[in-house]
Amino acid sequence: MLERFKPLPHQVVRVSADSLYDSVEGVFLHMGTTKEDAAEGANTLTMTDLRGVETHGVSNMLRNYVESYTSGHLNPRPDFKVVRDKPSMATVDADQGLAVILGPKMMRMAIEKAKVTGVGVVTLYNSGHSGGIGHHAMLAAEQDMVGMVLTSGGKSVLPTFGAETRLGTNPIALAAPARNEPPFLFDAATSAVAGNKTGLARRVGTTMLPGWLANLDGSPMDEPSLMMEQGSYHLLPLGSTREQGSHKGYGLGMIVEIMATLLSGVAPSMLDSKPYSKHHFAAYDISAFCEVDQFKDNMDQTLKMLRETPTAPGHDRVLYPGLSEHEEEIERRKNGVPLHTEVVEWFEGMSAEVESIPPLVRV
Amino acid sequence: MLERFKPLPHQVVRVSADSLYDSVEGVFLHMGTTKEDAAEGANTLTMTDLRGVETHGVSNMLRNYVESYTSGHLNPRPDFKVVRDKPSMATVDADQGLAVILGPKMMRMAIEKAKVTGVGVVTLYNSGHSGGIGHHAMLAAEQDMVGMVLTSGGKSVLPTFGAETRLGTNPIALAAPARNEPPFLFDAATSAVAGNKTGLARRVGTTMLPGWLANLDGSPMDEPSLMMEQGSYHLLPLGSTREQGSHKGYGLGMIVEIMATLLSGVAPSMLDSKPYSKHHFAAYDISAFCEVDQFKDNMDQTLKMLRETPTAPGHDRVLYPGLSEHEEEIERRKNGVPLHTEVVEWFEGMSAEVESIPPLVRV
Repeated sequence: MLERFKPLPHQVVRVSADSLYDSVEGVFLHMGTTKEDAAEGANTLTMTDLRGVETHGVSNMLRNYVESYTSGHLNPRPDFKVVRDKPSMATVDADQGLAVILGPKMMRMAIEKAKVTGVGVVTLYNSGHSGGIGHHAMLAAEQDMVGMVLTSGGKSVLPTFGAETRLGTNPIALAAPARNEPPFLFDAATSAVAGNKTGLARRVGTTMLPGWLANLDGSPMDEPSLMMEQGSYHLLPLGSTREQGSHKGYGLGMIVEIMATLLSGVAPSMLDSKPYSKHHFAAYDISAFCEVDQFKDNMDQTLKMLRETPTAPGHDRVLYPGLSEHEEEIERRKNGVPLHTEVVEWFEGMSAEVESIPPLVRV
Repeated sequence: MLERFKPLPHQVVRVSADSLYDSVEGVFLHMGTTKEDAAEGANTLTMTDLRGVETHGVSNMLRNYVESYTSGHLNPRPDFKVVRDKPSMATVDADQGLAVILGPKMMRMAIEKAKVTGVGVVTLYNSGHSGGIGHHAMLAAEQDMVGMVLTSGGKSVLPTFGAETRLGTNPIALAAPARNEPPFLFDAATSAVAGNKTGLARRVGTTMLPGWLANLDGSPMDEPSLMMEQGSYHLLPLGSTREQGSHKGYGLGMIVEIMATLLSGVAPSMLDSKPYSKHHFAAYDISAFCEVDQFKDNMDQTLKMLRETPTAPGHDRVLYPGLSEHEEEIERRKNGVPLHTEVVEWFEGMSAEVESIPPLVRV
C-alpha cells in the first residue's frame, strides 16, 4: 500500500493478533452468528489485517458489518442454498449472509469439485461483503491449487467517457503456491484506487493524486486534491484516462460483473440497487494440469527472478504480488497488528458494553 | 483503437473480406498446412481484421507467421497431444503449431467439457502466436457460454520499479453473449500499450504518449516520443506508474503467466527463451449456472445501460467492449477491409510468385 494511506505513528496502536481474533469473534457472536461462523469471520478479517491489507481487514470494515447486521441488511444465520449444481460448478444463494464468512465455505466447495474434475467454480449471489478476497483465494493455494476470486457489487466507478457511475470497484484476486518463496497473492480493485482507500484517505487526511478520481461531470481531476466527502467525486477505472488505458480497467470491471453477477443469474448493481454482492470462486487443481513439483519449482524460479530484478532509478527493490503481504504477516505476528486509535476506541466501547467481547490486548 | 494508430487515408487500400480470406488460406496452404487448418487460420485472422483489431489480424501478423514457418520455428503439421486430461480440463502440447489455428480447436475442446461438467479449461503450451484471442473467446459466446482466453509469451514488459523486462504483454480476453445487443468482447494486453501497437506506430509514424514506454533504465518516459526502434525502450504494465496502478497491470500480467504458462507445467519466457507461447482457454456453460434467457436479458439491459451512459465533457458516446468491434464488422463486410498499402503489396508479391495464392480483390 502507498505510504500516503497509512495512519501516522501517533494514530497507531499495536494489538496482538490473537486478541484481535478473539475480539472480532466476540463481535460476530454478539451479532448472532454461530460459533463456527464467528470463528470463520474472525479468521478472514484477522488474516487480512495480518497481511497488511488494512482497507479490507478489521480496521475499515467490521463497524460497517455491525451496522448491516443491526439494520437487518445482513442475516447472521444464513440458510444458504445451492440452487444449481454440476460436477465442476455450483450457483449459491447466500441468503444475505456475509461473504467474509461464506467465502471460505464457497472456496472449499470449489476445491472439492476441482479434486474430482480438475476445476471447480462456485458463484455466490445475494451476499454481504467478502472482506479481502485474497484470503479466500489463498485457501486454494494452501491445497496446492490456484485460487481465483472475483467480487462485484456497488456502483461507484465510471465507464470510460461516462459521467455516471455504472460499476463496482470489482476486485480480482488470484493466489498460487510456490515451494520456498512466499506464495503469489494478487488482490486488487479494477478501479484506479480501491473504494475503501477513499475511507482510509479521509481518516488519515491524505491527498488524492491526479488520475484517481473524476469530477461529477465525469472529467478526470488533474490536480492533487484533499479527499472529499462521498458524493462529491466518482472513481475512475484502472488506467484513469482512455489514453492511459482506462478502457482496460473498465473492461476488466465488466469481466468481474459477468463472471460473478451475470453468471449467478442476477442483475448488476447498475440495474438493481439492493446492497448485496456477487462472487466467483474458482479452484484449479495443479496436479490435474501438471506435476505439482514442476509447478512449484517454476514458481520459485519465477518469483525469485522477479524480486531480484535490477531496479529503476529511485527504487530499492522489485516486489511481486504477495511478497510484502508475507513480510507484513511475519512482522505483525511478532509486533502486533497496527490499528488506528479510532478503531481501538470502538472495540473498547464494544467490550465495555458487551461482556462476551474480550478486550484487545495492546502490545 | 486510438486514432493515432490508424493508417492515414492515402496509405489504405480496401479489399473484400472474402478475397482476404481466400488469399490468407492460400498463404497457409503454401506454408504446408492441411486444407482444414488453412481455413481455420484464415477465419481467425480475417475475423480479427473484420472486427477492427488491426494489431492482431492479417495486416500485422501474417508476414511474421510466414517467416516463422520458413525458419522452422513453426510446424505446419503439428501433431498436438493431450498430455493431461480430466472431465473439466486438459493440458495440450501444441507441437509448435500456430495457435491462430489451434486456438479454435482448444476452445471447442473446452466447450465440450463445459457441456458435461459446467466448466472446461484447456491449457496449451509449446505453440506459436494465437492471433487476436478475442476470436477464440467468441467461439464460446456463440454457443451460449462465457469464453475466456489468456495468452503469455515474450519478455517485453517491466515489473513495477524494475529496469529489466520480465513479462510478455500477456493479454486477457473474455466474450459473453447477449440477446439483441452485440455481444460483450474484451481483448486487451496487460501492458500499457499492446506490443503490436508499437509496430503499427512505426508504420504510421505516430507519437507515443507519456506513460506508455520506459527508458532502458526503467524510468517511465514523461514526454511524448516518436516511436523508436525496438531495443531502445521497454513496455510498462497497465497503470504505467506505481501511483497510477502499474502494480495492478504487473499483477494481472503475472496472473496470465500463472494460468497459461505455469499451469501448463512449463517455465515463463523470463526463464526460457524459446519463442513459444502458452494459453489458457476456458468455457463456462451459462445453462449450468443459471437460466440462459435470464442471463441474456440481464446482459441486454446491462450493455444498453452502459452505451446510454451520459458522457463526460468532450466525448460523444460511451462504448462497451465489443460494441465498436461489432460496428466495424458490419462496416468492413460492406465496404471492404482496410489494409495498409505495404501489406497489400506483400500479398501481391506472394500471389505473383505462388499460383495457389489468389489475388486480393480491391473494392
